[in-house]
Amino acid sequence: MKAFNDLADFSNEEIRALVELAGRLDTHPEPDALKGKVLSLLFLSPSLRTLASFQAAMTRLGGGSFVISPDMSIHGLETRPGIVMDGAAAEHIREAVPVIASYGDAIGIRAFAERKNIETDMAETEFNSLTGLVDTPCINMESAMNHPCQNLADWKTLDDLGVPANGGKFVLSWAYHPLALPLAVPASTLYMAAKRGMDVTVLRPEGFELPDPLMQKATAAADAAGGSITETDQRSEAMEGAHIIYAKSWSSTRHYGDKIGDKKLREQHLDWCVDEPWFDVAQEDCRFMHCLPVRRGVVVADDILDGPRSVVIQEARNRMLAQMAVLHQMLGG
Amino acid sequence: MKAFNDLADFSNEEIRALVELAGRLDTHPEPDALKGKVLSLLFLSPSLRTLASFQAAMTRLGGGSFVISPDMSIHGLETRPGIVMDGAAAEHIREAVPVIASYGDAIGIRAFAERKNIETDMAETEFNSLTGLVDTPCINMESAMNHPCQNLADWKTLDDLGVPANGGKFVLSWAYHPLALPLAVPASTLYMAAKRGMDVTVLRPEGFELPDPLMQKATAAADAAGGSITETDQRSEAMEGAHIIYAKSWSSTRHYGDKIGDKKLREQHLDWCVDEPWFDVAQEDCRFMHCLPVRRGVVVADDILDGPRSVVIQEARNRMLAQMAVLHQMLGG
Amino acid sequence: MKAFNDLADFSNEEIRALVELAGRLDTHPEPDALKGKVLSLLFLSPSLRTLASFQAAMTRLGGGSFVISPDMSIHGLETRPGIVMDGAAAEHIREAVPVIASYGDAIGIRAFAERKNIETDMAETEFNSLTGLVDTPCINMESAMNHPCQNLADWKTLDDLGVPANGGKFVLSWAYHPLALPLAVPASTLYMAAKRGMDVTVLRPEGFELPDPLMQKATAAADAAGGSITETDQRSEAMEGAHIIYAKSWSSTRHYGDKIGDKKLREQHLDWCVDEPWFDVAQEDCRFMHCLPVRRGVVVADDILDGPRSVVIQEARNRMLAQMAVLHQMLGG
Repeated sequence: MKAFNDLADFSNEEIRALVELAGRLDTHPEPDALKGKVLSLLFLSPSLRTLASFQAAMTRLGGGSFVISPDMSIHGLETRPGIVMDGAAAEHIREAVPVIASYGDAIGIRAFAERKNIETDMAETEFNSLTGLVDTPCINMESAMNHPCQNLADWKTLDDLGVPANGGKFVLSWAYHPLALPLAVPASTLYMAAKRGMDVTVLRPEGFELPDPLMQKATAAADAAGGSITETDQRSEAMEGAHIIYAKSWSSTRHYGDKIGDKKLREQHLDWCVDEPWFDVAQEDCRFMHCLPVRRGVVVADDILDGPRSVVIQEARNRMLAQMAVLHQMLGG
Repeated sequence: MKAFNDLADFSNEEIRALVELAGRLDTHPEPDALKGKVLSLLFLSPSLRTLASFQAAMTRLGGGSFVISPDMSIHGLETRPGIVMDGAAAEHIREAVPVIASYGDAIGIRAFAERKNIETDMAETEFNSLTGLVDTPCINMESAMNHPCQNLADWKTLDDLGVPANGGKFVLSWAYHPLALPLAVPASTLYMAAKRGMDVTVLRPEGFELPDPLMQKATAAADAAGGSITETDQRSEAMEGAHIIYAKSWSSTRHYGDKIGDKKLREQHLDWCVDEPWFDVAQEDCRFMHCLPVRRGVVVADDILDGPRSVVIQEARNRMLAQMAVLHQMLGG
Repeated sequence: MKAFNDLADFSNEEIRALVELAGRLDTHPEPDALKGKVLSLLFLSPSLRTLASFQAAMTRLGGGSFVISPDMSIHGLETRPGIVMDGAAAEHIREAVPVIASYGDAIGIRAFAERKNIETDMAETEFNSLTGLVDTPCINMESAMNHPCQNLADWKTLDDLGVPANGGKFVLSWAYHPLALPLAVPASTLYMAAKRGMDVTVLRPEGFELPDPLMQKATAAADAAGGSITETDQRSEAMEGAHIIYAKSWSSTRHYGDKIGDKKLREQHLDWCVDEPWFDVAQEDCRFMHCLPVRRGVVVADDILDGPRSVVIQEARNRMLAQMAVLHQMLGG
């Protein structure tokens, strides 16, 4: 495996093998598998789970890692191409990324969307400009439109819960949040559930539709796997018979890059905070998923997070196991 | 061992076994003991020794660790229960702590006292609210009233120096410091020396008495171990025949949570800076102990720190060894 | 090996052995060589390559490391001797350095020049005051006038490129930069190339001469190894037949510690930005070296960095390998 950038680069069989490996590494540790191997971790955006779980993953496999992020006492990183560097930044990403990569057997990179122009973000312009600088095997630790480690972990969580791959109903629901957040998690989670063969409903207010190309990509994956994609702004319609509600806030795609327009629209939907009444028409044991971090009392009620429906901690732990599987395939043997 | 939160949870035999193990791991390294094991380290308060020594300890035992602290580029941590998270913090400690714990075989947590209400702090309200979120074995890396890793290291240092367990005279002395510091070190050091069976004198100005319940806890431990506890504000009385002076500044318990009242009182005692004349009536080889960090020329004179009386570096190194023993018992075998 | 502070402490045979070991560890990994060993890393100045490459180096050899830098949530470090610590800093370097060292089998220290007084900096006053506090084997991760890890890596890079040790022409060129930078890299690179036996030309504008004692030290090394040292402000004279141009900006030695005087002088030389015309009279395959970080469009043109002349990434990767060799000799066996 030379790259782990997008679940779409892998067949369902390959994904199932990774999920199985993740489970096996949990029950049968392999502390010598990556002895002496190094994972370089470059964070251009904040992180907690990814930061912690990749370090833990490498230790559990007998290797190690190091972390570079711009908040450290490094030299200030310039990202603009072709610039005369006579300002504050003393180092260009064109040197920093290859150097950091050169110390590792693989590199993980996190770089959030710019959220100015949706086409630029959908083209993964920034992430590709970074990975294009190196030949080292690369892991996407969240880019503008992708978060494959989260997706793989969530796939495993669905398996762990016994949610049917075919016939399972997965609701991806927008939720209120005070800020305009990236599309990476909703877009790639939609794709994951579709590829798993589930019946997926995207529940969101008008103006928060996911971009057409992403819907089409997911629809093709659903078709191939025996699932389906629907879209609605009606909560009860979406939640009817649901096995899973996966909540996440995201930017208005109608006002992408326009903070004021986005804010005006989202503030009409302060009531999109998942609480127990949402589950009235769902499966009795319908579970609540979220990638974290999550704002309590805003995105979801405390009762849900603290009650038996929530599987958010299991999802987070599966991040480590999923990443161990990826690292094992990428660097092992 | 499921937790290392308070020396009081262990018998003297258990503590002596830990100290012995710490010494053995120093002379007989076991670099495979915790192969592939992970220690999660969560710092909600600043640290240098604890930060460094736990990482070093895990490496020496063949495992590894990762560090999370709020000064990192993470998402901002909310600690208040039941709050609607529509402000700056994007993640609640109720998710963060279980997630961080889920990546480790054990978790170390540091959370200083709030220093508003002494009953709240003595009840370890904050620390217990954090450890209560997880089932993972937990190590107290300093809480409101406890610092068991420091205590275990100091116990070993006393052994290393050949200070008698029974009949050894231990002076725990308040010292001046510009800020109102927590009670964790004085309270738990008092307990440690008492439990070791020493004759302990608490030397402090009026208004800096340690809280009654802590004095009673220490007295009970001293009684059981053949030691004693006394208290005075008279330096020469305290230092008479002392084997050890353990200096530390702490808040006025008379003005707990009242910075102005505390400041007024402490500024009457600028002369409580340990220097050579303090040792006039002590044992000739009386040693100076301090947990560090220490303010030179304020808490203690440079001469003492730079001279043969000081064992502060040995104490600090014993932190690593003591923690290796705890980790070995908690995660090994 | 008890210390790696200056290339001058080693014979050419010893250096060649280190370079050879660095190469062997690249092709024949030894992931058990430093099992359970710890490297303490103390950064009092910013870092990216050094920070990352030392951590990677220890992992590849089976050990580990920890990092302390003042930007972390530690207690604030005081460096002034004899001071009464009643201000913001809660810990003195006189305690911090021995403590940090006590957790490691070796300690790496980075402390840039003060750049106030050139004699103080040439005497390595600050670095020696730090290393003088500990008995632990010490590695210089860049001091006022030395950067031996960079030098060893560059020696290896020259070998890798097949640049002749005797008869190879090495141009150490000043370049423009908006800030007055330390002399550590130019001074120690000059010495490295001289010791390797090369014909070295120092190309710099008037006022940027390297200090006499450093020129003399390099000249002695060149004499012993069959090389030579010359100095000029004429680009074409310097570049005639060059195998290597090693660019680096540094402070004016005429206005050392005087930022305004330095700035006035350096701003007359904005055209000292290495671009293709500089190579007109050089060897056809003349390479561009730089220790990084480098300011694009200021110190060197993008074309050079992005083209085949540049070996800056190889140099950076050799940092890791060179340090592995040093660590292997210092802590292995």
